[in-house]
Amino acid sequence: MSHSAIQTIMNHRSIRKFKDKKLTEEQIQTIVEAAQMASTSSYVMAYTIIGVTDERIKEKLAAISGQTYVQNNGHLFVFCGDLHRTEQLGSQEDREQMQQSLASPEQFIVMTVDAALASQNAAIAAEDLGLGICYLGSLRNDVYQVSELLQLPERVVPLFGMAVGYPDHEPEQKPRLPIDVIYHENHYQPFEHQLPFIKDFDKKLHSYYEKRKQNNRNDNWSKQMIRKFSTPTRMDVGTFLHEKNINNQAD
Amino acid sequence: MSHSAIQTIMNHRSIRKFKDKKLTEEQIQTIVEAAQMASTSSYVMAYTIIGVTDERIKEKLAAISGQTYVQNNGHLFVFCGDLHRTEQLGSQEDREQMQQSLASPEQFIVMTVDAALASQNAAIAAEDLGLGICYLGSLRNDVYQVSELLQLPERVVPLFGMAVGYPDHEPEQKPRLPIDVIYHENHYQPFEHQLPFIKDFDKKLHSYYEKRKQNNRNDNWSKQMIRKFSTPTRMDVGTFLHEKNINNQAD
Repeated sequence: MSHSAIQTIMNHRSIRKFKDKKLTEEQIQTIVEAAQMASTSSYVMAYTIIGVTDERIKEKLAAISGQTYVQNNGHLFVFCGDLHRTEQLGSQEDREQMQQSLASPEQFIVMTVDAALASQNAAIAAEDLGLGICYLGSLRNDVYQVSELLQLPERVVPLFGMAVGYPDHEPEQKPRLPIDVIYHENHYQPFEHQLPFIKDFDKKLHSYYEKRKQNNRNDNWSKQMIRKFSTPTRMDVGTFLHEKNINNQAD
Repeated sequence: MSHSAIQTIMNHRSIRKFKDKKLTEEQIQTIVEAAQMASTSSYVMAYTIIGVTDERIKEKLAAISGQTYVQNNGHLFVFCGDLHRTEQLGSQEDREQMQQSLASPEQFIVMTVDAALASQNAAIAAEDLGLGICYLGSLRNDVYQVSELLQLPERVVPLFGMAVGYPDHEPEQKPRLPIDVIYHENHYQPFEHQLPFIKDFDKKLHSYYEKRKQNNRNDNWSKQMIRKFSTPTRMDVGTFLHEKNINNQAD
């Protein structure tokens, strides 16, 4: 049965348990070609996708992320921002000329957005093939080690991974913030205007967490967020980017 | 005729000329709901989408971007990274506790990736509805002015726009880098290994630019990239982020 793109999008849930079946070369190619069709800023295509099949590397990445499905899946992609490639195109003189631009926060946005747009195309293409996906921001738990494992040169940074495979569970869809919180017209709506909708959402989520089959608990979105941000995590990411000669602040 | 998600993805081209017909409220809602279904890091949903309908604001945004289709389209979205919302959820004490995390480059990645994933869902949903889209990184030509026009508070940053509407031209698809350049297995492939494929691509692109109906010219990808990065642009973006208390480097 063929689904429309919108149906595929609206049916999304993250899959964290996969059947023991690898993707075919053809499936991988379809997913990567779909990724490549995403828009790219000024045609730079400032990303590289690394498919990890070496079980020893997968094991180490799983340890970094703390998630078994980083090892046990149909295929593992790591999406990297990449300005190394473009830098290398030039002569020594060109490269010196390009340094200031390549190291700027503006170009860090370019690589991050390029990689993310490509990854979302990959996600939807995979789901269209009947596969499930899970994004893995958890690879940023140790960007230094990921970078070393994947042998990333200067100006290439691992942004996130994506586990893909045949779903082996059927999780419920996770509710999203009400559209009135996310979508504003003409001007940013002050937080006070968003708050009543967030309170409704907190109630909805409280009941979702209370009722759901697995990991049920007494919680809501606001509590979760305050908890999350009260403990700084991955504070070495900024330093890592700096050492990769990326995202450098202006003097 | 219904297209599969992969067909919609593979048929993408950026549309830069739209018919004079506005999107309906229902179309806008479908697109935003699709955006919201994208994965989000740790459930933060660290983005806000601003739909711009006020013609005076659109005119100013078009002047910033230097592109007429920022004004003339069916609808204009601006995708913002947003950590203001989550910060405001807390008490004064909570907020102080959250400062260090919220200001970190790690959380700047989170907001940028969250916004980009949502935007790509929006793009595909729009294309599935028979509409065309164009990403507008050009809004970053003046992030300060965009922020002021849209009244963005601290920790909300305009990342890019998206013009949506009924296509009024049929541009050719722009070729992408060969898959061997973008997709590597297990390790980053050194630039020397990518180079033969890039040279092929340069030839292909040279002939594409020579033959294409509009704006034909003598050019290739490598030349374009060297030109682009040799002139630093948008060097104020880093300072802007810093002033928004976002993406601050570690001391």
